[in-house]
Parts: sequence; C-alpha cells; structure tokens
Amino acid sequence: MLSAAMGTDSGYVRPLAELAVRFGANVQPGQIVGIASEPGKEQLARAVAEAAYEHGAKFVDLNVFDVHVKHARLMHASPESLEYVPPWYGARIRALGEHRAATIALTGRVAPHVMEDVDPALLGRDMLPSIKDSLAVLNQRLLNWTVVPCPTADWAALVYPDAENGEALELLWRDIGHVCRLDAPDPIEAWRSRFAQLGEVAAKLTELDLDALHYEGPGTNLTIGLLPSSIWDAGSMVTAEGIEHAPNVPSEEVYTTPDPERADGEVRSTKPLFTSGVLIRGLRVRFEGGRAVEIDADEGAETLRKIAARDEGAARLGEVALVDRESRIGALQTTFFDTLLDENAASHIALGQTLESGVADEDGLARMNESEIHIDFMIGSDELDVTGLTRDGRELPLLRGGTWQV
Amino acid sequence: MLSAAMGTDSGYVRPLAELAVRFGANVQPGQIVGIASEPGKEQLARAVAEAAYEHGAKFVDLNVFDVHVKHARLMHASPESLEYVPPWYGARIRALGEHRAATIALTGRVAPHVMEDVDPALLGRDMLPSIKDSLAVLNQRLLNWTVVPCPTADWAALVYPDAENGEALELLWRDIGHVCRLDAPDPIEAWRSRFAQLGEVAAKLTELDLDALHYEGPGTNLTIGLLPSSIWDAGSMVTAEGIEHAPNVPSEEVYTTPDPERADGEVRSTKPLFTSGVLIRGLRVRFEGGRAVEIDADEGAETLRKIAARDEGAARLGEVALVDRESRIGALQTTFFDTLLDENAASHIALGQTLESGVADEDGLARMNESEIHIDFMIGSDELDVTGLTRDGRELPLLRGGTWQV
Repeated sequence: MLSAAMGTDSGYVRPLAELAVRFGANVQPGQIVGIASEPGKEQLARAVAEAAYEHGAKFVDLNVFDVHVKHARLMHASPESLEYVPPWYGARIRALGEHRAATIALTGRVAPHVMEDVDPALLGRDMLPSIKDSLAVLNQRLLNWTVVPCPTADWAALVYPDAENGEALELLWRDIGHVCRLDAPDPIEAWRSRFAQLGEVAAKLTELDLDALHYEGPGTNLTIGLLPSSIWDAGSMVTAEGIEHAPNVPSEEVYTTPDPERADGEVRSTKPLFTSGVLIRGLRVRFEGGRAVEIDADEGAETLRKIAARDEGAARLGEVALVDRESRIGALQTTFFDTLLDENAASHIALGQTLESGVADEDGLARMNESEIHIDFMIGSDELDVTGLTRDGRELPLLRGGTWQV
Repeated sequence: MLSAAMGTDSGYVRPLAELAVRFGANVQPGQIVGIASEPGKEQLARAVAEAAYEHGAKFVDLNVFDVHVKHARLMHASPESLEYVPPWYGARIRALGEHRAATIALTGRVAPHVMEDVDPALLGRDMLPSIKDSLAVLNQRLLNWTVVPCPTADWAALVYPDAENGEALELLWRDIGHVCRLDAPDPIEAWRSRFAQLGEVAAKLTELDLDALHYEGPGTNLTIGLLPSSIWDAGSMVTAEGIEHAPNVPSEEVYTTPDPERADGEVRSTKPLFTSGVLIRGLRVRFEGGRAVEIDADEGAETLRKIAARDEGAARLGEVALVDRESRIGALQTTFFDTLLDENAASHIALGQTLESGVADEDGLARMNESEIHIDFMIGSDELDVTGLTRDGRELPLLRGGTWQV
C-alpha cells in the first residue's frame, strides 16, 4: 500500500479529508464548516476545505492557532492577564452553533518543545485554543463535529525520533492511514462496521446497569461510581437536528458518565499526556470522594495541578472510557503523544466537563460534572483488569488482558 | 549591510517587527493587537506578536487568511453564495474597534498564481479577506493600525524571476529593509524625518486650496475635481483618542479626498495592480462626471469591471495621492506587484471608499465617496505632469519629472 512514489503522505491527504467531511463531520449541503488548524497543517486543511466545498458547504471558516504566539504571550504578557480571552472568540463558537455549522478540528502535534522554557505555573492559565463556550455548544448538540489527526514533520519526529525526518513523516502517515482505516477498500464502510461492534458492547454495558467500575493493575486500584442514569455510548453522535457524525476519527472507545462524587483510590497513567503545552509523564492521581486530592508525575505535575484547580469540577471526573485490544491504535504499541490517538489506544478517564450523551435523564444531567476543562488521561493496558460492580453486589469482569468479557 | 551569514532575511525580521509595533501601529500598553497574516508569513507574524507582548500588549489576536481556501470556494461553491461573509467576521472587526485595539497587517504576496484557473467573473464577488466593516471602523479612527510588507519566497520569485529562489528572497528582504528604512541608524527617527518633509508638502498643497488636479502623460489626460474642504495629508494619522500611528510603512504619498462627481478624461496605469487574486496589467480607465465609464486592460479587465460594479461608489474615486521621485521605492525602479509598495512608488488614485481624514468639515464628510471597496491603482511616472487648477483659473505645476514644484 505504502509507496515512496506516493510521497511522504502516502496519498492519504485527500482520502483523510474526504473521511473527515463525509463521515466525521458528515457535512450537509448549505452548511458553514469551521476548520481548526495550525501552521504546518496547511495541506490537509486545504484538502478538507476543498472536499467541504465539493460536498456543498456554503462557507469554510478556517481558524489557525499559532502556538508560537501563545508562547510569546506566556513569556512576556503580565501573568494576571493570561486567563483573558477576547469576547469574539466565544462569540464565534456560539455563532457557529446558532448557524448549525459543521466543525472539523485537525489534531496532531506542532512545535512540541516550544513551551519548555515557560514557567509551568503559568501554562495552565492560558487554555487557548480551548474556549469554554465550546463545551456548552457541543453539549447542546448544535454542531456536527469531528476531530481527525493531521501528520506533521514535528509530530513525526516525536513519534519516530530515530528515523530520518522524511521517513518519520512517511511512517506516521502510514500509521494514520491504518488507524483511520484509509487502507480499507471502503473506509466509511469500515468505520460503520467497527462502530456497530462498539455499539453492541455499549448496549450490553448499559443493560448491566452497573453501580461502579473497579480498576486494578500496576499502580492502580481505583473504584469509580456511575450514576443511576449512566448510559454507555460509542462511535457516532447525533445533533439536535438529527445529523449523525463521528466526533473522533479514529474512535475505539466505549464511554459513559461517572458520578463526580464517587471515585476512590489510586490510578497510574499508562501513557504520557500532552496538555497546555507540556508533556505529563508517569502521572499518578489519588481520588477521595470523587476529587483528585493528590496529583503527582515524573514530569509536568505542576501544570496539571494548576488545571485541576481551575474550577470546582476540574478535579472531578467527567468521563470514563473503555478500550479493548482490538483497537488498531493499541495494536500498534506506539505512543503518539497526542490525546486523540493515545486515548483510543487504551482505557481512559477524563477530568472536567461531561459530554451529556452519557446520561439518560434529567437527574443525570443535573448530577454530571461541570468544568471549563476536559482532560483525558490514559490508564488502560493489557495488565489492567476492569470489573463491573452491580447494585446487588456482584462483580462482573469487563476487560481481562485487554479483551471484552461481556 | 547585507551579509549571507545573516540568512535570507538579512537580520531584518526583528527590526521590521519592532518598527511595526513601536512606530507603525504604535502599540500602547494594555492594548489588544490584531495581526492579519497568511501562511508563509509565520516568522514575521510571530516576531510581531513577540514585540507586541514585550511592549505591553494585553492580547495578540492572530488572524490567518489562506488564499488556497478562497480558491477552493471560487472553484466549487455556488456562485450566488460568493458574496456571503459570516457575521462574526465583521463582528470581530467592530469588536476590535470597540476595544480600541491596534492592528498590524502583513502584506506581500503568497501563491501569486493560485487564481489563474478561476472564472474571472467570479473573482470580484468574494472580496475576502477585505471586510466592509473595516472601512467604517478605520474611518471612526477607533484603531491605531499599520500595514507592513512581509517578504515570502513566492513573492520574491515574482519580483526576481531570474534569481535563484533563496537569492530572490534575500534580494527582496534587502529591498524591504531599504524601503522601510531599516538600514538607517535609527529607523523610527528616519521615518519621523521623512514624514515631516511630506507633511510640509501636504500643508503647502492644502494652502493652495486647489479646485482640481490635471494629469497629463503617455495615455493619460485626466482632470479630477477636489472638494472645497479637501485637505492634504501624509505620513501618520491620529486615532479618536489621540494615538499617533503610521497606517502604511513604507509611506511616501501625499493624499487627499477628491470630489466623487468630478473626474473626466482618460488615465493609463503605470504599474500592474494586484487585486482579488488577479493581476491587472495595462489598465486604462475613462472617467465621465466622476464615474469610471470604461475599464480596459491588457489583462484582468473583467475582474476590475466586476469590482467597480459592486456598488454605486465603486466606480468613483475615493482618494488621490501624489508621490515624488524621492520615494525610496520609486528609486528602486522595481515593480513589486503589491499595492503597499507599488502605490508608494508612484502617484495613484483609488476607486471606492474615502478615508475621512482628507476632508476638513461636515460638508466634505457628506460629499466624500462611499463604497465597500478601496482599490488603489498607480498612474504616476517621471513622464507624468501633475498640475493644480486654482479656483481663480490659474495653473500651478505640482510635479514635473517626478519632482515637487511646490
């Protein structure tokens, strides 16, 4: 499949753009399409724009965030101004919602080392390009949205540090092509089939009506309570107006909404986490009564502590997700240093805002966690046992050796 | 001054950024700074952001416009949608005004050939990145703003087609360094001195209280009426709140506001004009009663005709500007295919919106031209004689052989 004659992108730029437009965001004729990109991602951003217009988009609103400008801010602006966000940033997101737009965000790392000289205490203050209005707009299901990975030379060098630069990028494109199922005869059909499998697992988990999950593995002994109305979901979402879309491509997770007041024990992260410009390695978190009361790490702990102190919900859980070893990402045994891929390689939990689709009723909506942040971190591995605890006290194995038991 | 050891930017990136921040926009502590950039201009955009934060900016709002995305729109979107602009584009500009922000736009060409396969009839319909709200905000003098040139490899190849790519970029940076007076011991002082000279000429022209200007040269025989309240200006402007700034760096022009109802005769452009993605060469315009009634060109006429038909004021004049041969840009005898530089090489006139500073009273404000567009085109050369016609019928030579006669 991979051929040097196809160039370092292996010919996947256009197919990935098509997948993002036709399957990920599922752009409808006449829609405005917001694209979130960064310098270094021009080739894919332009291909996405072109595919969107070809599929009838009314207008493509490209938004480019430059992390070097954020770096200059963190180095030189007054620390008390770092939480300031101009009002038109949130207004744009809300307007995209009001216009029932589609959005396509290109993840994948650029300039991975740019923040290394910044005071870690400052990093958590400037959360851009995250905008708190986004979570509200997403939760109202106004947008058909997706996040897809965009290989860059910087990112490739991080994932394949020993390869030549051109070769590293080629290897990363090969991985992205594989995990996005672009190497399938019909990538969209391949995703529909995988989402159907994951949907079956989610339906079974919802039927079990679990009271809690218990995680046990190296460095991890954690129990997370679920809400009576917690439902499990996977794959695609549907907007308030009925447009089906795949928020993450790739997506290998089955997820639900935890009780933000019930998490107790210790958990050790199994993959590095990149957030707010820093890499957090060897993360260890202790929960008591739902709150992260101790956050330690081999690297980057201070930044995560700052983020978790941002508001009341930032130290509580907003998502639990299980990933089995059938994940194409997990099978690669590669750390991508990018949440979209790494969270779909292994089971994970997230601090902060809940996505509403994981609860079935008003009681669940009222009890789910709220925060300006949503930070996933990876806790799964083949050595992690995940067990369901039922309301009548039974213990049901869910994942053993990375394989579904349901 | 120029040294290969300094790299292709000749060490001018940081000095140009400083000039844009400290002299051009004259950024004040606590201000929000909008930067308008394009892919390929990251190095200067980041240096401007850094200089702005160092000089006390509260927030830098970088806006990146990708002409390739516009190209995809023109190729694939429905023609009747091409005038659509999302409401948040104008809202951002108005909000920058309400916040009394500074703005710094980086001109200079990228992807000069990208629009060559687009139907010329469509090009004038999508005026982005121009936004009509901008002219209103500028005319209310809410922003301290500047436009500065940003060398790119694409642009260098256009200006120096016979040079090797790296060498072309080095040559262009040398030119930009020279015309922006970055090679002066104190560039800001050099600009203050040049602006003082131009200001003296402007004051003398205002004193003459001219009724009209007459242009005569190869292919040109044109008379343009002035308003009783027309005043001449040059160099810097002052915001409503008193912040002095230099809207264009470089700026070599002395300009005023014409009577939009009095322009008669023919004019031939002396330099190519780049607008809406097309290069217009050999432009010839005939005016009657202030209106451009015939627009012809060797290349690109149709696009300019479309633009001039956009609204009532688009075929009438909003600016007349005189440039003498002391201009460092004119002295280079180089066509830059970029309006900021080419308009400051030679005398020019502009179709469309008037900038208000060229009239002295309410009567002038009421009579000045209004339009969504503002398109400068160059008519000056050493062969062009410019003569002032006084209200009592005298003819006063203003420019002869490119030299001021006042």
